[in-house]
Order: sequence, then structure tokens, then C-alpha cells
Amino acid sequence: MQQRYYTLSDMKCLFETLKSFKKSDETKGITRLAYSTEDEAAHQFMIKTMKAHGLTVRVDAIGNVFARLQGKNSQLSAVGTGSHLDTVPEGGAYDGTLGVITGLYALMQFKSGELLRDLELVIFRAEESSRFGFSCIGSKVMTGNLDIEHWKENVDDEGKNFFDIIDELGYSSEKIDTCVLPDNYFSAFVELHVEQGARLEKESLEVGVVNGIAAPTRFEVVVKGQADHSGTTPMNQRQDALVASAGIIRKINHAACRESYLGTVATVGKMEVHPNSMNVIPGRVNFYVDIRGLEKASIARIVDILHEAILVAEADNDVTIILREISSEEPVKLDESICGVIANQCKKSNVSYMNMSSGAGHDTMYIAKKYPAAMIFTPSRHGISHHHDEFTCFSNIEVAATLLVDTLKDLGNRQ
Amino acid sequence: MQQRYYTLSDMKCLFETLKSFKKSDETKGITRLAYSTEDEAAHQFMIKTMKAHGLTVRVDAIGNVFARLQGKNSQLSAVGTGSHLDTVPEGGAYDGTLGVITGLYALMQFKSGELLRDLELVIFRAEESSRFGFSCIGSKVMTGNLDIEHWKENVDDEGKNFFDIIDELGYSSEKIDTCVLPDNYFSAFVELHVEQGARLEKESLEVGVVNGIAAPTRFEVVVKGQADHSGTTPMNQRQDALVASAGIIRKINHAACRESYLGTVATVGKMEVHPNSMNVIPGRVNFYVDIRGLEKASIARIVDILHEAILVAEADNDVTIILREISSEEPVKLDESICGVIANQCKKSNVSYMNMSSGAGHDTMYIAKKYPAAMIFTPSRHGISHHHDEFTCFSNIEVAATLLVDTLKDLGNRQ
Repeated sequence: MQQRYYTLSDMKCLFETLKSFKKSDETKGITRLAYSTEDEAAHQFMIKTMKAHGLTVRVDAIGNVFARLQGKNSQLSAVGTGSHLDTVPEGGAYDGTLGVITGLYALMQFKSGELLRDLELVIFRAEESSRFGFSCIGSKVMTGNLDIEHWKENVDDEGKNFFDIIDELGYSSEKIDTCVLPDNYFSAFVELHVEQGARLEKESLEVGVVNGIAAPTRFEVVVKGQADHSGTTPMNQRQDALVASAGIIRKINHAACRESYLGTVATVGKMEVHPNSMNVIPGRVNFYVDIRGLEKASIARIVDILHEAILVAEADNDVTIILREISSEEPVKLDESICGVIANQCKKSNVSYMNMSSGAGHDTMYIAKKYPAAMIFTPSRHGISHHHDEFTCFSNIEVAATLLVDTLKDLGNRQ
Repeated sequence: MQQRYYTLSDMKCLFETLKSFKKSDETKGITRLAYSTEDEAAHQFMIKTMKAHGLTVRVDAIGNVFARLQGKNSQLSAVGTGSHLDTVPEGGAYDGTLGVITGLYALMQFKSGELLRDLELVIFRAEESSRFGFSCIGSKVMTGNLDIEHWKENVDDEGKNFFDIIDELGYSSEKIDTCVLPDNYFSAFVELHVEQGARLEKESLEVGVVNGIAAPTRFEVVVKGQADHSGTTPMNQRQDALVASAGIIRKINHAACRESYLGTVATVGKMEVHPNSMNVIPGRVNFYVDIRGLEKASIARIVDILHEAILVAEADNDVTIILREISSEEPVKLDESICGVIANQCKKSNVSYMNMSSGAGHDTMYIAKKYPAAMIFTPSRHGISHHHDEFTCFSNIEVAATLLVDTLKDLGNRQ
């Protein structure tokens, strides 16, 4: 019953339709929080649409959606693609959604039984951390990376717990274990996503072939000095929390520049100075360090330098510094072979591309722990994401969608 | 008609009475803004009190008060002392007021005709900049440091201009020129004031002999970079406004430490990071530099290093930096001979003291432009000032008041 001739225009139409699943009173951006009325409606719409196009649809116990196109041999592991539909508050229309619409487009380019392996489009639930404070719930559950105790503690802004919410929607928190996919479920998985950075735009490239995901290692640094009058406190009596912080920031930056040949980056993006008055020596500074990279050893070297810099800053400035680790996720390397397939397809089709790592987290981080996986990035205008100004021009989306078709064809025909 | 036996207890009583001149609904601190109802009432009360104690009181065209005790030869220049009664919003009870009450106490320790020279207690109007945005109006007017055009432009929070306000109170803006004191008016002037810093407290000293006033040279620094995603922007593509700022802050601090043997200090106390998000490279940072010292050349060397640091930061970090001078007041050296008199009296009376500069501005800055002048500081607990927690213990005030008596006696008997 599969319908052919699903065109790029059809895909664009679907994209525009999905934009309408947002809070009704919204004028800026799209708010489609995980498991909200809008999110649930978007999922039900996609299920209906995918069934209407002849795909076999299955929904697991927490609402992850799987839409399958038969291959010649369904005994073989399937080739997966997909992304998520939920957004951050007042988010963009592209993040997540692009992986879903291009996934459907790609599947629709093949007849049932045309490829060797089944193709499967996955719509992961609750990728964004906006509602519950933890991200990638759907992909974590599928791959057995559950943290049930932690999830039970957290509630959303209305005081509702994740488990209660999914039960209310008719899913089953009791059966969450049944969501775990078999070890041989996928032979390969490819997620298409917006870059959320400006590297592709800056280098005028159409596509990024993502060979790793650099999850952040994050610290809060609290520098405690003494707030004194700027005019009446001699230099040798000062306990200047800002001067101490400046030294640490310089050293983190220098360390990251030394490691940049490995793609590692480190940033101090947030900083609060107290009491923040022109004529008072800063008595306390809080700042945050965000380190990302694919090489654990490289990240560890920057963390070592952070520790050293703190000791020096304490001694030099007569301040006390508290370092608190906020998160320390493992960087994930993606599958070289799949990256090679994608890159080859780019070369064949004259698509300009670069190999790159992702600075942001994705469902593919968890899928990649069990299955060979990679990602395709489309350019983000000005690198903006998680914002109503998020934009990728449709010609870029078409190039990436076509690349996804070629990639799935190659992977779907592999023995 | 002069009354003798004005005791330290009388002075304490006067201090407590002056505390009551504040906004009636005030629970924290003292708000007695320049020329407010409360400020005017405090001045009228002091005029009445000083007349009752036999002093000859004169009020000039803008409300500066002069209370004189005759010496043997009133043809000679007088010896002056005094300070101000106005406060910042929710200020302390000590700043300014101490110089007035100890001044009255000191004058009352002498009989008319006892000393060679006249003694004169001055109550300067509008020392604090809180109401009009410019400070030391009374002492500026007395010494001919008027900036009438500038003063005409500025208005208080209620939109009232300085000149209109004084005319409403019955003073005369038209006669402002008559306020300028003759060149031979004072042979010496000594202002007693709270330190507004913690050096005396930290060194456990009773008195500071102030040999200079280090008015601030201030800059705003605006660093314009580019706000990009912390995870997706490689180190070599960054325009990090915070890393650039950190370098400048370190260099300013280092430069000030090199100059600290001259008492020069430099501070970055206020800093704003934009957009100030953990996963965004700072695209803009505003910070403020406050440099103070008695040696112009020393301040200039730090300013030179600031300029150099900006050029290096721009080149190193691909940012644009705008430097705006907010103020650049001349440091004022006070009279060595008067400082010597004060120090000698300390030694004679076993009062512990240090020579020091003032980091904050005072009326004596302007008096010192025309007359030999110096200051006596009393310790400020924890260095706190311009705040309801401002405090100086009364035993310290007594020591300083007695020192002022001895100093005025010495100066008043000089040929």
C-alpha cells in the first residue's frame, strides 16, 4: 500500500504543518515542550501521516515512535534514522523536526522490499531538557541508559513528575523496561540535525559529517575575596575576586587553544561579580567553565590546568576558591564507517562538506553506545539555535535530505 | 558671652541630636540630601546652637555656614576647620557630621581672644554628589571652582535645578560670586573625617594624618566580540569579549602593583557580561576602571598600560574595544607643614597614627587649592561608609577631637 512520489515539496509542506503544533497564543518561535498537549498532537499527527504513507508504525511504552519500511530481508538489523519533535520554550522550527521530515522523505524514496534491509524512522520523545531538567529521555530509555531514581525526583514547572505525565497520556511507566531495543536492532543509524553552530556557514559548506559528539564537562567556580573600598585599600591588602578570576580565565583559554588541534574547546560564558560597584573591590565572583571535546585526555588536561590555576590564583590573590563539577559527560565518537559512507555520497553528488564534531548533545549520543551511528548537519544561519531566529534555508535542507536518501540506500543494501 | 566647659559628653549629645535630622519614615540609616528639608533644618539647628555658644555666625549666599571665635588679632588669617552635614541616601551618621561636631567641640575649648588667630568652623553645603550629580558644591563655590554652565544643566530626581532650589530656600543664586573667600582668608585648614576605608582598623591605629587626596581617574571599557555557541565554535574562530577583558584586568592589576610603592591603586569593580549564559561565548563585556593615587605620573603610567593592554587584547582576541574616560580629577597634595603639626601632636599625646592618603574626595580638596590644608581621619569599622552600617567608636572620636583641639591651638598661635 506504499505511496510513491513523496517529493521535496511534500516534505516542505509537512515542515510547514508541523510549525503549527505550538502554543496557540505564541507569536515568537515554537513552544512544544516534551509531552505537552502540542507535542502529543504533533506525534499523533506524524503517526497518522506515516501510516497513511504505508509505513508500519509502532509506539513504545513511553511514546517513542518507530515507522518501518520493509526491506528484502527483515531478519537483518534495520537501518535507522530520525530525530525529535519537542522544542525548548520559544524555540526554532528546525531543531529536531528536520531529522523527522527528512527521515520520512528518505524512506518514501524507496519501495517496500526495494532495499536489502528494513529502514526505520524513529521519533525520539523528550530530547530537550527544558521540561524535566534531563535530556534525551527517549533515546536513553531505548538503549537502557535509564536513571529512574533521578527521574522520579525531578518535576516540571507545574510540579508534575515524568512518570505521572506519561501515564496520564496513556503510556505506561510500568512497562518502561520493554522500551529497550535488542542488541541487533540497528545495523546503522543516521540522524540529520541542524548544526547549532556557525562553522558550516563560515566555511560556506552545505553539510557537516559528524564524527563525534563533544558532551560538556562543566564547572562552577566560586571565588571568595573581600569587598573593600577601591580608593582606600592598598594593593597589598586586597583580596580581589575578579583579578583572581581573570587569571584563571586566561589560563583556561590558553589551555584550550593548546588543545584546539584536537577540536577541544573551553569557555567561560557566565560570570557574576559582587557587589559589582565601580568603587568596590569585587568580594565574590561566580563563573562557569564549559569544556567540550572528543578526546577525554584532552579535556582532562584542561581540567588539570583549571585546578592548577585555582591554586595559583588563591595564593596570588589571598582568596578562597571553590570548584564544583556540574556535569562530566563522556564524549562520544561516532562510527567511522558510516561517516565514510556519508562523505562518499557527498563527493559523488558534489555536495560540499566537512568532517566535524557536534558541540551539542543529541539522541545519537545514546544510540551510538549500542549501534554504529553518525549524524549529518545542515548549516544554521549565524549559528543561532534554541531561539525563534533559528533558520536553515530550504535549499540546504533539500541537499541534506537527498544526501540522507543516498546514505540510507547505501547502508540499507549492505550485507 | 562665650560659654566654657563644652565637654566630650556635650559633643556626643550633639551627635545624637543631629542623627534625628533625617527623613521621618526612615528606619535604616540617615537620608539628609543636600538642601532637603532635613538638611536645611540641620543647618538652622547648628546655626542656633553655635550662636548660643557665643560664636559669630555668618551664612553665605548659597548657605555655607561660618562660625568664628575671635583670636587676639583678627587681622591675621584665620585657622579653619569643618566638614559637611548632608548625606547620601540611607547614609551613615558619621561621614561629614564628625567634622562639624568635633569642630564645634574644638572651638569651645578656647576663650575668645585666647589664641593669636581667629578660629572658624565651616559647614560646607552639598558635599555629596547624590542629589545633583556633582560634589563639594560649597567648597567649590568658596574657592572659585565654579562650573555654572554644567550646574545649570543638571537637575535632581524631581527635575529641580540647583540654582532654583537655593533661591527657593531664601539663598541667592545671583550672589554666588560673593561666596568666594579672599586669598588670605585661612592660614590653615584642618578637616576631620571618617576614613571610609579599613587601613586604620587593619593596622589598629587611632588616627590617620592625611597628606593627600587621590581623586579617581575612571574609565568605562566596552569590549565588543561575537556571541557564539560555546560547544560549536572552534578556538580560532572566537571573538571572546571576556577572555579579552581578563587580559586587560590582569595587566591593570599588575601595573597598579608596580606603582603601589607610591600608594597608587587601580580597580575593576564593576563588570557586565553579555549574554551571560553558560554555553554562549561572551559577545560583549562592559567594565569600569578606577585608578587613584597622589602622583599624576604614576596614574599616567597605569593609563598608558591600559591603552597598550587594549591594543593587545584587540589583536589577540579579534574584538573591538572602546575606552571612554568618565572622570580624571587631579590628585591633591595636602600641606606637609600642617601634617607635621598633627603628627607631632599625636606623638605628644601618645596617639597611634599613620600618614596616609584619602581615596575618597572631600571639601578639603578644593580648600587646599587656595589655602594650606590637611585632614585627620578616624577609623571606619570594616571600612564601611555611605551605608547605615557606617560606624566609628566614640573613644576614637574623642581621641580625634582632642587631637583637633591640640592642632588648632598650635596653628592658631602660629605667627
